[in-house]
Amino acid sequence: MIKRVGNYEVLHEVVEHNGILYLSGIVADDTTLGMADQTTQALTALTRLLEENGSGTDRILQVLIFITDMKLKPEMNRAWKAFFNNPDHLPARATLGISSLEEGELIEIVTTAAVR
Amino acid sequence: MIKRVGNYEVLHEVVEHNGILYLSGIVADDTTLGMADQTTQALTALTRLLEENGSGTDRILQVLIFITDMKLKPEMNRAWKAFFNNPDHLPARATLGISSLEEGELIEIVTTAAVR
Amino acid sequence: MIKRVGNYEVLHEVVEHNGILYLSGIVADDTTLGMADQTTQALTALTRLLEENGSGTDRILQVLIFITDMKLKPEMNRAWKAFFNNPDHLPARATLGISSLEEGELIEIVTTAAVR
Repeated sequence: MIKRVGNYEVLHEVVEHNGILYLSGIVADDTTLGMADQTTQALTALTRLLEENGSGTDRILQVLIFITDMKLKPEMNRAWKAFFNNPDHLPARATLGISSLEEGELIEIVTTAAVR
Repeated sequence: MIKRVGNYEVLHEVVEHNGILYLSGIVADDTTLGMADQTTQALTALTRLLEENGSGTDRILQVLIFITDMKLKPEMNRAWKAFFNNPDHLPARATLGISSLEEGELIEIVTTAAVR
Repeated sequence: MIKRVGNYEVLHEVVEHNGILYLSGIVADDTTLGMADQTTQALTALTRLLEENGSGTDRILQVLIFITDMKLKPEMNRAWKAFFNNPDHLPARATLGISSLEEGELIEIVTTAAVR
């Protein structure tokens, strides 16, 4: 069975199948913020979505991080590390520098996670 | 067991394992077309591959859309919405603006789907 | 159960869940090399990680290849084909041209694979 949550016109926020959550790309609510704050906002939104769907930040499998300026990767990483206070829970990850997201967006996070 | 379909020199079009289809990036056949038509062509090719492999557009879990010009995202979205006439079937999705695909290609779609 | 291997400060190299390996992005060790050699180095590192975790190059499901110069895709493909000497084992794949990786990096490979 496929369970879909959060229909936003062109996508669902979360799709669950066979114990795995497939998430849409997550960005910060406030795209006037800098990289550290956008990262924290996106991870906060991710945490909420995971917890609402029977998972959590300790159940993330793989994350693709797309950022529009690789020079801001260290700033992103600091916010990322502060967020994952338990390093045992860190997922597999790749960080890719891309040319553009929506205006103002510095980071978009694409996640696959396991339900509990 | 891993089942692979459609060997194209450096990849297989579809790889199936444990009820999940992992697809190669799909582009339009005719890369002289504009974004709307390239999107529709790529989604038509995706539909065919899904149906030939025991899945369908109602079984897509997650899609990564890479486009070379974020200004064309609204045009892509219109073609996307016209294609998914049942919004209940919309997958998780992320749209990323990247610097380049092969010449003429405006969009490449990477898909994970469940078999029926 | 989730098994994580290779903690590198912000990520784990490999995360295993339900028979699937989710890998972090893999790059060449020596980023002064050209595309062919970076590709071979990255695929060599990938092979080692897969074999250390109960999988192998014949068990790769899907690969996302991010390269910083699409003009080097043919060179990447030659190294890729030389590496996969058995074409029956080729995974699903997408190659995306992105604006930047870490300095000197020409290619980053993101992999999903099945354990044996």
